[in-house]
Amino acid sequence: MAEVGIVMGSDSDMAVMAKAAATLEEFGIDYEMRIISAHREPEELVAWAKGAADRGIRVIIAGAGMAAALPGMVAALFPLPVIGVPMSSKALGGTDALYSIVQMPSGIPVATVAVDGAKNAAILAARILAVSDPELLQKVIAYGEEGRRGVVAKDEKLQKVGYKNYNA
Amino acid sequence: MAEVGIVMGSDSDMAVMAKAAATLEEFGIDYEMRIISAHREPEELVAWAKGAADRGIRVIIAGAGMAAALPGMVAALFPLPVIGVPMSSKALGGTDALYSIVQMPSGIPVATVAVDGAKNAAILAARILAVSDPELLQKVIAYGEEGRRGVVAKDEKLQKVGYKNYNA
Amino acid sequence: MAEVGIVMGSDSDMAVMAKAAATLEEFGIDYEMRIISAHREPEELVAWAKGAADRGIRVIIAGAGMAAALPGMVAALFPLPVIGVPMSSKALGGTDALYSIVQMPSGIPVATVAVDGAKNAAILAARILAVSDPELLQKVIAYGEEGRRGVVAKDEKLQKVGYKNYNA
Amino acid sequence: MAEVGIVMGSDSDMAVMAKAAATLEEFGIDYEMRIISAHREPEELVAWAKGAADRGIRVIIAGAGMAAALPGMVAALFPLPVIGVPMSSKALGGTDALYSIVQMPSGIPVATVAVDGAKNAAILAARILAVSDPELLQKVIAYGEEGRRGVVAKDEKLQKVGYKNYNA
Amino acid sequence: MAEVGIVMGSDSDMAVMAKAAATLEEFGIDYEMRIISAHREPEELVAWAKGAADRGIRVIIAGAGMAAALPGMVAALFPLPVIGVPMSSKALGGTDALYSIVQMPSGIPVATVAVDGAKNAAILAARILAVSDPELLQKVIAYGEEGRRGVVAKDEKLQKVGYKNYNA
Amino acid sequence: MAEVGIVMGSDSDMAVMAKAAATLEEFGIDYEMRIISAHREPEELVAWAKGAADRGIRVIIAGAGMAAALPGMVAALFPLPVIGVPMSSKALGGTDALYSIVQMPSGIPVATVAVDGAKNAAILAARILAVSDPELLQKVIAYGEEGRRGVVAKDEKLQKVGYKNYNA
Amino acid sequence: MAEVGIVMGSDSDMAVMAKAAATLEEFGIDYEMRIISAHREPEELVAWAKGAADRGIRVIIAGAGMAAALPGMVAALFPLPVIGVPMSSKALGGTDALYSIVQMPSGIPVATVAVDGAKNAAILAARILAVSDPELLQKVIAYGEEGRRGVVAKDEKLQKVGYKNYNA
Amino acid sequence: MAEVGIVMGSDSDMAVMAKAAATLEEFGIDYEMRIISAHREPEELVAWAKGAADRGIRVIIAGAGMAAALPGMVAALFPLPVIGVPMSSKALGGTDALYSIVQMPSGIPVATVAVDGAKNAAILAARILAVSDPELLQKVIAYGEEGRRGVVAKDEKLQKVGYKNYNA
Repeated sequence: MAEVGIVMGSDSDMAVMAKAAATLEEFGIDYEMRIISAHREPEELVAWAKGAADRGIRVIIAGAGMAAALPGMVAALFPLPVIGVPMSSKALGGTDALYSIVQMPSGIPVATVAVDGAKNAAILAARILAVSDPELLQKVIAYGEEGRRGVVAKDEKLQKVGYKNYNA
Repeated sequence: MAEVGIVMGSDSDMAVMAKAAATLEEFGIDYEMRIISAHREPEELVAWAKGAADRGIRVIIAGAGMAAALPGMVAALFPLPVIGVPMSSKALGGTDALYSIVQMPSGIPVATVAVDGAKNAAILAARILAVSDPELLQKVIAYGEEGRRGVVAKDEKLQKVGYKNYNA
Repeated sequence: MAEVGIVMGSDSDMAVMAKAAATLEEFGIDYEMRIISAHREPEELVAWAKGAADRGIRVIIAGAGMAAALPGMVAALFPLPVIGVPMSSKALGGTDALYSIVQMPSGIPVATVAVDGAKNAAILAARILAVSDPELLQKVIAYGEEGRRGVVAKDEKLQKVGYKNYNA
Repeated sequence: MAEVGIVMGSDSDMAVMAKAAATLEEFGIDYEMRIISAHREPEELVAWAKGAADRGIRVIIAGAGMAAALPGMVAALFPLPVIGVPMSSKALGGTDALYSIVQMPSGIPVATVAVDGAKNAAILAARILAVSDPELLQKVIAYGEEGRRGVVAKDEKLQKVGYKNYNA
Repeated sequence: MAEVGIVMGSDSDMAVMAKAAATLEEFGIDYEMRIISAHREPEELVAWAKGAADRGIRVIIAGAGMAAALPGMVAALFPLPVIGVPMSSKALGGTDALYSIVQMPSGIPVATVAVDGAKNAAILAARILAVSDPELLQKVIAYGEEGRRGVVAKDEKLQKVGYKNYNA
Repeated sequence: MAEVGIVMGSDSDMAVMAKAAATLEEFGIDYEMRIISAHREPEELVAWAKGAADRGIRVIIAGAGMAAALPGMVAALFPLPVIGVPMSSKALGGTDALYSIVQMPSGIPVATVAVDGAKNAAILAARILAVSDPELLQKVIAYGEEGRRGVVAKDEKLQKVGYKNYNA
Repeated sequence: MAEVGIVMGSDSDMAVMAKAAATLEEFGIDYEMRIISAHREPEELVAWAKGAADRGIRVIIAGAGMAAALPGMVAALFPLPVIGVPMSSKALGGTDALYSIVQMPSGIPVATVAVDGAKNAAILAARILAVSDPELLQKVIAYGEEGRRGVVAKDEKLQKVGYKNYNA
Repeated sequence: MAEVGIVMGSDSDMAVMAKAAATLEEFGIDYEMRIISAHREPEELVAWAKGAADRGIRVIIAGAGMAAALPGMVAALFPLPVIGVPMSSKALGGTDALYSIVQMPSGIPVATVAVDGAKNAAILAARILAVSDPELLQKVIAYGEEGRRGVVAKDEKLQKVGYKNYNA
């Protein structure tokens, strides 16, 4: 049964949001993934977000660009944590989506990650679920350790080949 | 019967949005005025916006600050023109609300006016209604003419008293 | 007879503004389309905008980039609704045109849409004309429904092929 | 035993961060509250953040201004959810703290809320704990309901007294 | 006979634009000063700007705020130098007026000075007129020299009283 | 003898600044063109700018990018008009150069044009020289008229071929 | 003999720059303090900056606002470290000075600190001098330790009085 | 023995940071170069930065992008000068890293250079070391002189070939 819902406002967000799905898979977390537009399908969105908790969803990751109403509207309808992923865009670089997602009024928080930060959204979802799942917490710690070792390996390569050959 | 709906997300927007109401009154346009929060009352908003056209509402003016989802959500649910008024705020000066309102994705437009521009929102509503109301169009033209005369009078004062005494 | 005027300040705006024309055609709305520069042809602009209402124009869509004076000047001369489309640009990303169009002083509103949002400008024009045209209102509603179905179809594809094959 | 850690980088953040503490109290959530500067006490920070999980802390709320390294460094050392609160400031309005907190690199997420959004940080912490605490989930839902009723009451007042007397 | 025209879009710009007038007086340069709104009085503006050269005006200083179309429209109608003064404002700090004035398209330049920089606008006008007026050039040089001596005097005061007593 | 000095801080500005030279040539205005870096050759800059008036230079066009000190330093040393051209750049889009050039302190104005607006800088120089040169003024007016006819021709093409074939 | 030069472009910067002087005094570092305007006194600036090393100056702290050319020009003339302090301002919040100081072209660095960060400029000067002065290094370390203890004391107060009484 | 430490948060910064290493080599300054992530390896960072002074490191150059905590954390742990290099990025252009590095709180300065300004970071390091190394100071002066001659040569080429052939 899916514990995480991934929702995006448009399939133009798929390349970014796919990283959230792939990362949840690395943690062995079940998810459902939907394309629902807050502005084109407001009532579908209401139905989906309101019913999510009853379907077993514990965390929702919502990605949207421009006037990104999706994450905030989901957070208005779903009482558990909602993570917002602002999409970058050409004209305003992503500040439009970032401000539309992070600047939520008092009462309805959205846990906002970096512009295009879908991978971090999945890791945050894992951390949230790990609050009550010691096994998942061990995976989160191991994932961080793996990340650490990745940087260590890069530094070792640098010490070995020097900066001139690093990208050669 | 109200032809214009004015809606704001919080009563902290009242000082600004009151200008919209007062200006509609100058034009003799009936309106209804509501405080409905997109993020705290998403279902009330859906009900209100979906029913607006049947109640005779022809234009909606929606004001909101920060992650201002209200105007866009109204535009998703009401098929006639929606005018958005971004509220200024301390931290980001109003760019957050401006971007959240104006950067609507393709398909669902919001007619955005200046930050805190509630008066212009009302004038825009009057212009929209004037498309099919020749009498109102005359009022809009007269209103513009009155504005013009206001500036002329200020210039005449300047020519008379000079800049040193203008603000004295 | 044209009901909508489309005007742009330069033919470098054509690729964007063409979307407004194409979308009006989808709604069966007659339009006239002009290239008139506010800064190079101020008097032509005055003549065109002042005469527009008498020619039957009910709404004007004005697109411009950089120090985008065109929409505001049109709104100063034409008493019915003016929709402004800010053009994106390299150096400032479109914030220059956006601010130049949306930040109109009290008295003269411009209904501003997203940066490069010419398609939404046309939909907004249709919504405005639909205020007094029930048949057009049905088209606007059908257009929105078609947009909704488009997203539904994308979601159905996602459920069928999964995210890994979605863009394959 | 404290389930939430509140940490701020300076006591100039106290007026904002106090709202997080007060809101957690409304939910009946135990917390510890600390002033620890990432830049003045890096080793104390490491010790505090590394030991937090063992002390029973399940979520950390970290508030900081300017080059706000605190939330990200806590997230580097504590494997459960970290919520970041950017502080507004005079010169750059809070964009400095917002960008310093939200733009975390891949691997280490910070759940960022609005500039000065300490109250929402506490609500987000409650939502996170509610994932595995049905009783707390009921409180979160009731809290949202209370917020909803607050807006309803304001709207009722508006309908009763009208906008001219609303703020009188 | 006036050689410089000072024009502002609103009498709310008077406090700033008065500095331009006062500074021209220091240089002994005759000027006319007008309040003409580009958006409320487009035809008056066309008439005034088109007739300016024939009245002997050699340089125009135009100040405006928000969507500041005035300087650019004057530059479109008057073939000699136009100096633009962007007004600061609450919501966007003056970036709106700055971008609206400085980002002129190719063909029609506006000589833009700092936000609220009306004094510098007058000095720039003096420099422009000094190109063909050796006596005025001597005044410009003397004015700069006086400015230089002012800073020298402040430095001498600092050396004498020290920084602790400087503002005492 | 050169009446206009064109100076740039780096030969990476050449592609942009070449437009200033080419446009001055269209007006038949003699110029000298130099590469002098304010930060690498401060004393050469002082010598060049101080001696410019005696060599007959009446206007200086200074282009620079990033922390663009060149135009302001030239304006500090040369008492006649200085026109600043901010160069666009990758990281900050040209706001760095724009702010560095336009935000001059009281006393020393720089006539700033658009980011990368070297062509307009040359037209502004022509307008400045035209203040005392009736023949040049006729050329400036004719240049504007030619620009106007260019837009008219584009509009005529649009009326003839329609928007679908315009860019074909 | 002064080892540090403090220079500011205007005496309006004194309230901020005084903190640099006071902090250097805490470290027992001799300094000279000057008001020299890059734009009003370019030649005095050249003379002062060129002669500084011979007078024994090892580090220069330069504060300026708006189009802040002073730090960069000093760095062009003085071969040892130059620290730049951007001043905040009303219209653009200090981004103008920050970009004008930090975005130096390749070849001539300015060590930029935070907007209004004159105290940090002095600490940075102390760190630079401490590179070759073990006694001063001990003072820098002790100063950091004192800062650390200050935060510890604030945290102890918080633990003792609680957040409700902290600012009482 | 290395006198300068170069550290970057990710090997994606290598292309930029390599310029720092290459420039230090031009000055004959020994350095060590490391990849250490503040967010993935906080304890390695503490150990490296705390031990740097004892290993003989006199200056550290730290480059990082996005929420760039690395330079500030190094400055918290190493008492001698730390130079920060903000990396440009797609979404926010580098303002995120710039603000995260330059806006350090009082007490812990980071000497910030331009976005992607790694070469200037190395020159600044050389200037800092030159405070107590007369031979290195001669190299710094010679390096500046070489830079000056480079611009002179470009200007000579321009005078010889003209702007039309300059980039040919």
